[in-house]
Amino acid sequence: MSTDLPTRFRDGKVPALARAISITEDQRDGFEELLHELLRAGPQAKRVGLTGPPGAGKSSLLALVANAYRALDERVGIVAVDPTSPYSGGALLGDRIRMNDLATDPGIFIRSMASRGSLGGLATTTKEVLDVMDAFGFERILVETVGVGQTELEITAAADTVVVVLVPESGDAVQAMKAGLMEIADIFVVNKADRPGAGRLAKEIRQALHLRAGEALHDVPAHHGVDLQNVPLELRPESSGDSERWEIPVLETNALDGAGIPDLVAAIGDHRAWLEGSGELAARRRHRTRGRVQDVVQREMRRVAWASDEVRRSLDEGVRGIERGEGTPYSVARDLLALLLR
Amino acid sequence: MSTDLPTRFRDGKVPALARAISITEDQRDGFEELLHELLRAGPQAKRVGLTGPPGAGKSSLLALVANAYRALDERVGIVAVDPTSPYSGGALLGDRIRMNDLATDPGIFIRSMASRGSLGGLATTTKEVLDVMDAFGFERILVETVGVGQTELEITAAADTVVVVLVPESGDAVQAMKAGLMEIADIFVVNKADRPGAGRLAKEIRQALHLRAGEALHDVPAHHGVDLQNVPLELRPESSGDSERWEIPVLETNALDGAGIPDLVAAIGDHRAWLEGSGELAARRRHRTRGRVQDVVQREMRRVAWASDEVRRSLDEGVRGIERGEGTPYSVARDLLALLLR
Repeated sequence: MSTDLPTRFRDGKVPALARAISITEDQRDGFEELLHELLRAGPQAKRVGLTGPPGAGKSSLLALVANAYRALDERVGIVAVDPTSPYSGGALLGDRIRMNDLATDPGIFIRSMASRGSLGGLATTTKEVLDVMDAFGFERILVETVGVGQTELEITAAADTVVVVLVPESGDAVQAMKAGLMEIADIFVVNKADRPGAGRLAKEIRQALHLRAGEALHDVPAHHGVDLQNVPLELRPESSGDSERWEIPVLETNALDGAGIPDLVAAIGDHRAWLEGSGELAARRRHRTRGRVQDVVQREMRRVAWASDEVRRSLDEGVRGIERGEGTPYSVARDLLALLLR
Repeated sequence: MSTDLPTRFRDGKVPALARAISITEDQRDGFEELLHELLRAGPQAKRVGLTGPPGAGKSSLLALVANAYRALDERVGIVAVDPTSPYSGGALLGDRIRMNDLATDPGIFIRSMASRGSLGGLATTTKEVLDVMDAFGFERILVETVGVGQTELEITAAADTVVVVLVPESGDAVQAMKAGLMEIADIFVVNKADRPGAGRLAKEIRQALHLRAGEALHDVPAHHGVDLQNVPLELRPESSGDSERWEIPVLETNALDGAGIPDLVAAIGDHRAWLEGSGELAARRRHRTRGRVQDVVQREMRRVAWASDEVRRSLDEGVRGIERGEGTPYSVARDLLALLLR
């Protein structure tokens, strides 16, 4: 790795940014030292996540929002983690033109994250890429994910403000909301608001939010999922309870004619003010920092574990033993752990 | 944990199955010993995964397929990991009736996995639940996921036969296929085949499959995602290359009137015969076993790491230090690792 990369990065050279991101994505030798070097200043950017089911029009909305921030003279970094996103491959339909418009604006930097082949590491790597873009000095960072999977929810929750985008066609929208989206939404958007059912969907979401506001804050059933001490399972820090609560707005937009976009930008601004005034921004950043340290530790433990020839040989032998009916993955894992933790 | 649980489990008592699954899901003390006890015999069941975007009609298809196997007198275990699935909460529309039909059949056992609150552990836990159902003696296990996220793809790949369900409305279906679905599909289904665009979608998928067959088998770009030695990133074992290849069929179904279901059941049977005849079944099971051992080792390493008071204190101090501008997550992680690996 060339030693002047951090210097060129701090000088605002876009190729240095692109290179730093690639090094991070590939986890090339020394990438953690590079990240340590680049991230000393801590997070500064205003981070907005857009998520929702495929086909909700997130990319179009994101382009409009990005343009709105450009009009305010903010420099905008965009990370797209949407496997069906027009960024991430052959752009389709009218999106091609709109995305190209974005891509030629020197105040906008777009990076799409390939999800293929990165099982198990996508969430951490994407969050690291967000940090790199933050360190480069973008005032605004937008991250887009398809918010159905766990990994995608985790990435989205790394934003300060999360916008959940639904459309009348989402169908079981309120069902989908139950599946984690409601926990992370700071703003709901019903896009394609000219279509039948948009008003009804907005009303349903408001009712669901109302119901939820009446529930206990932390009602995740204890018997669901893993219960590992201090592993970063929670998408959000615990609410301190004494700060004023954020009233989640439900907005209607139309990415085709831009209707509702100014309201959305205003709501994101309101949320920012609330984050800063309530102490929630600091809490969310601390939560992210803590989770990141744990991610990095766990990644390195995995690397160290499987880098040993002895451990790999034992793994192979154990797998063959299981096939012969001698033991199970649990007995083999126990033996490997004895080797690793001795 | 009552000592006679394994006995009652092996005697085929359904409450013992339900209890074993709950213990696994909750990772209660001793769950790994229980799994070791229950899983000695290794996998026996025929496992079929259904995946696809939300709204593709997977649940309805799954109900029809389950009924087809019941008609063949197979006992069927079903695991649903679909956050929008009618299993997992308030059933909607006609699904309620159909699912209740399934649920009252004593030859069918349904378990829905809540994805909420289980970040980071859902894939491993779900695969363990599949193993528990396998050990209980179901001849057929069906697992349904919304196949957009990484976690969900990983779960689906734990099936022997993966059916990817798309609908004309999926829109960017071929785009979506690129996002991992094509890598794991053994059978494609275009559901709602009576709707406009179904034939065209089926044709597009066939063309895409054709194109792919002409490509090199392993064309995943090296610069995408993580590159950790031996961490189980690959959803499928490497092809040995010398066995006859499976020609992925593209079927059309209609879950409303059951059209195409016999063809689907036949295709699953053909795939099974190919799996067994080609040696691919053994390869997939070995791949799963290996990945499971690694999952269990990594989970235990995480548990051990964060269980130590000293490590947790250092983590807290490190996070506070980062907030004061002293260090980054990478320097703190390095200190923690020195503590852990000393």
